Amino acid sequence: MPNRSKLNDIGVIGLGVMGKNLALNIVDNGYRVSAFDLDPVKVTAAVAQARAEVPGRAQVLDGCNNLTDMLASLAKPRILVLSVPAGAPVDGVCSALFAAGLEADDIVIDTGNSLWTDTVEREQRYAGKCVFFSSAVSGGEVGARFGPSLMPSGDLKAWQHVAPIWKAIAAKVDGATGLPIERFEPGNPVTEGEPCTSYIGPAGAGHYVKMVHNGIEYADMQLICEAYQLLHDGLGMTPFAVGEVFKGWNQGSLNSYLMGISAEVLQQDDPLTGKPLVEMILDKAGQKGTGLWTAVSSLQIGCPAPTIAEAVYARAVSTQKPLRLALSQKLAGPAGTKLPEDEQQAFIQALESALYCAKVCSYAQGFQLMAMTAKEQGWQLDFAEIAKIWRAGCIIRATFLQSITQAYRDNAELHNLLMADSFSQALSQKQKEWRKAVISAVSLGIPVPCIASALSYYDSYRSETLPANLLQGQRDYFGAHSFERTDTPAGDKYHLNWSDAKRELHKL
Amino acid sequence: MPNRSKLNDIGVIGLGVMGKNLALNIVDNGYRVSAFDLDPVKVTAAVAQARAEVPGRAQVLDGCNNLTDMLASLAKPRILVLSVPAGAPVDGVCSALFAAGLEADDIVIDTGNSLWTDTVEREQRYAGKCVFFSSAVSGGEVGARFGPSLMPSGDLKAWQHVAPIWKAIAAKVDGATGLPIERFEPGNPVTEGEPCTSYIGPAGAGHYVKMVHNGIEYADMQLICEAYQLLHDGLGMTPFAVGEVFKGWNQGSLNSYLMGISAEVLQQDDPLTGKPLVEMILDKAGQKGTGLWTAVSSLQIGCPAPTIAEAVYARAVSTQKPLRLALSQKLAGPAGTKLPEDEQQAFIQALESALYCAKVCSYAQGFQLMAMTAKEQGWQLDFAEIAKIWRAGCIIRATFLQSITQAYRDNAELHNLLMADSFSQALSQKQKEWRKAVISAVSLGIPVPCIASALSYYDSYRSETLPANLLQGQRDYFGAHSFERTDTPAGDKYHLNWSDAKRELHKL
Repeated sequence: MPNRSKLNDIGVIGLGVMGKNLALNIVDNGYRVSAFDLDPVKVTAAVAQARAEVPGRAQVLDGCNNLTDMLASLAKPRILVLSVPAGAPVDGVCSALFAAGLEADDIVIDTGNSLWTDTVEREQRYAGKCVFFSSAVSGGEVGARFGPSLMPSGDLKAWQHVAPIWKAIAAKVDGATGLPIERFEPGNPVTEGEPCTSYIGPAGAGHYVKMVHNGIEYADMQLICEAYQLLHDGLGMTPFAVGEVFKGWNQGSLNSYLMGISAEVLQQDDPLTGKPLVEMILDKAGQKGTGLWTAVSSLQIGCPAPTIAEAVYARAVSTQKPLRLALSQKLAGPAGTKLPEDEQQAFIQALESALYCAKVCSYAQGFQLMAMTAKEQGWQLDFAEIAKIWRAGCIIRATFLQSITQAYRDNAELHNLLMADSFSQALSQKQKEWRKAVISAVSLGIPVPCIASALSYYDSYRSETLPANLLQGQRDYFGAHSFERTDTPAGDKYHLNWSDAKRELHKL
Repeated sequence: MPNRSKLNDIGVIGLGVMGKNLALNIVDNGYRVSAFDLDPVKVTAAVAQARAEVPGRAQVLDGCNNLTDMLASLAKPRILVLSVPAGAPVDGVCSALFAAGLEADDIVIDTGNSLWTDTVEREQRYAGKCVFFSSAVSGGEVGARFGPSLMPSGDLKAWQHVAPIWKAIAAKVDGATGLPIERFEPGNPVTEGEPCTSYIGPAGAGHYVKMVHNGIEYADMQLICEAYQLLHDGLGMTPFAVGEVFKGWNQGSLNSYLMGISAEVLQQDDPLTGKPLVEMILDKAGQKGTGLWTAVSSLQIGCPAPTIAEAVYARAVSTQKPLRLALSQKLAGPAGTKLPEDEQQAFIQALESALYCAKVCSYAQGFQLMAMTAKEQGWQLDFAEIAKIWRAGCIIRATFLQSITQAYRDNAELHNLLMADSFSQALSQKQKEWRKAVISAVSLGIPVPCIASALSYYDSYRSETLPANLLQGQRDYFGAHSFERTDTPAGDKYHLNWSDAKRELHKL
């Protein structure tokens, strides 16, 4: 319940699109908000927007001239929400807050896309000066405004203090159907349903989970893009027609926010030329770090996450447009570049299966990565709950997450999502069509790095024996790295004396 | 020329297989060597081996009891070769050397697989206490003993001091044929030909180049393993028969050290059971970091290196054997699991092409990665020279490297190896068979993460337009990330107001 004293309940620092929208969301939910940005124009604009959106609004969005004013305006212990770029700006604001008189039990919540290890380090470094808490936010600008998915972590007492506000502003899901309850009306927030926020764990855990969320998001987006290129270049469909296919898929097992907006983007005309907008957008994809951090983390901890890594690399290739233009003139592809008409409908169906299977694999990679890191860090992550709070608000929201929640409810210790019957059965059933789609892509010369790498992932995990036995033989040959045998106890190491004519086997 | 005073020329610290063999190699080349290990047994063994190998040998390998003795035994400025595990042990030995009286102009050469950024940091940290130099070593135990590929970097004056020894002990290549000159005889080193060592650049550059070498090595090894699994599982060939195929390939464009030893490993019988040894080796591949560091570096700098990353992930999947065993019972694959007899010969040929093409792509990734990092770090790397010093001694030695040297001699500014006519023509010619091999693998249900990801890499770079245009549309839709247009100047950013019914386009 909001604090109705003259002091405000919460301060928001950084009024870019995310910070401003979070502030407006909090105001909508009846809390009194102080707002500050280094740019006074942004402060004025936020205050004006709060008033204009809901004329006569009783709630308060107070603009502050500086951090000293902001601290004076807040009830203690103060809650300060930071919405500034990850990295140095976070520490910059903290230093300024300390100088302005922040107190040891005041709570600072970093909502940016900070690197999780920075968050761990900050909690320790700022102990005694403030309670450094973090809450990753997913959902883009609309999510921030009308209900994001929130992944808080850090000091448990701080969470208890913050939780009522967080539950109020979070996206909501209908408990019965599992579907998002969406109402994009200023001053009329969604107050019913299950809030998409849950305490994730100790410092860093929330940002780690959000990082992996973004890695999965990279793969989700790239998979849809690969489907688009196949349908557009391989079948010669217009963007609008591909949008129609996506709309159809969005009614089935591939239902997701990203599938829906992809259809909208493909069916959008360019206001300047009247052509399909997508054809006027330059094909150089940007990135901000979280996707590559996910891939880096997976490599470092030894968790296979090739579909996520391929999605990051796909963006990197896209940015090298001059090289692509040059190579497109030098490298040959298949002779025929379109799929025959009579195979097209079957191909579209196969592609739907392929996309579903690859998507399951990328989620399996992300969840296995979180599990391995949680084990290493000593975090108790509740994966059923994590899948649950991603069902609304966030970018990868999809009905599909309901099945993941169910899989982890059935078995909280699940090593890999592919072990859940629901997924192993679906993939086993669809793998034939998945192969068909990959074979068509390879034949057509259209790159499908994520769809194909997911299939290799699937086939690798299906392999009782992998050729890593030869690899261990190679390593023992050139580097005396030794190997284990299939017929002796685990951990027993052997080396063959390859450079000697006798080639004797030695137990180490 | 060796220093013939009573003082020795060089000290070797750490007498594991690599350190001991380097010491023996240096002795063979006429230098006086002091040797130390924390384990006195290793010191005694190294001294005994030096004497036993060449009875009546005039050269010197002196065992030392401690670092103080070692420092007293060496001419100044001293040259100390560290062959200890990467990480803390390097700093441990340095501290001990400082305590033992190391002087500011003494040269410490780290030959381990250190992380390159650690090397950069050490050079700075130890300035004034010693000249911290580094030289990556490739070639495994045999290379260290009879001629490795050496990648020195750091202080140029130190290099001038060390160069004569380094050139003497390095592997040698016949200048006319480009082939390694190999003679594995103690006391009879190869003194003719071009030495496989060259000053790489400032501190860290040598270890970076070696790291990428190892990343390429991971891909090379995995590609051969994928070919083995295809021939073994897909065609039902015995390991011995696959070894015959590999021997044949080793006579052609796939000629390489790794192909040769793979054939030997496959044709090796197990001394214990008499079965093919490879079938008795447990299929869990180890790794020591350099491969994953290469993939991490490529992600961080935005250089597509999917084939290298897939090779790292393939090792990670292999280690999860219990999960694989469980999933092999749950996940369905194709019904027919063997290729028909009459297609087998054509498949083997297609596979040879596929392997060649994928290998070129993994080298292209590695060299582009070095180029991007060199640019970022301000290093002047000579790629023709780097390919040249990899032609002998090191694990990825292959006649193929001659073509890379030529490509960079023709154009030192080559953005990507695929831009070189020799490679673009070869891949254009072989791409049809490459696709055929991937299609067979996908149909058979045999994982080919590296061969297939390389094909996606090839097809991505062939794509004048990638679906990153849709991806930028998605990003602008949910996160207002903006996009560039194809018909306006580079750098001009646009945002469509997606949440408004009017959907106006704004130039930012």
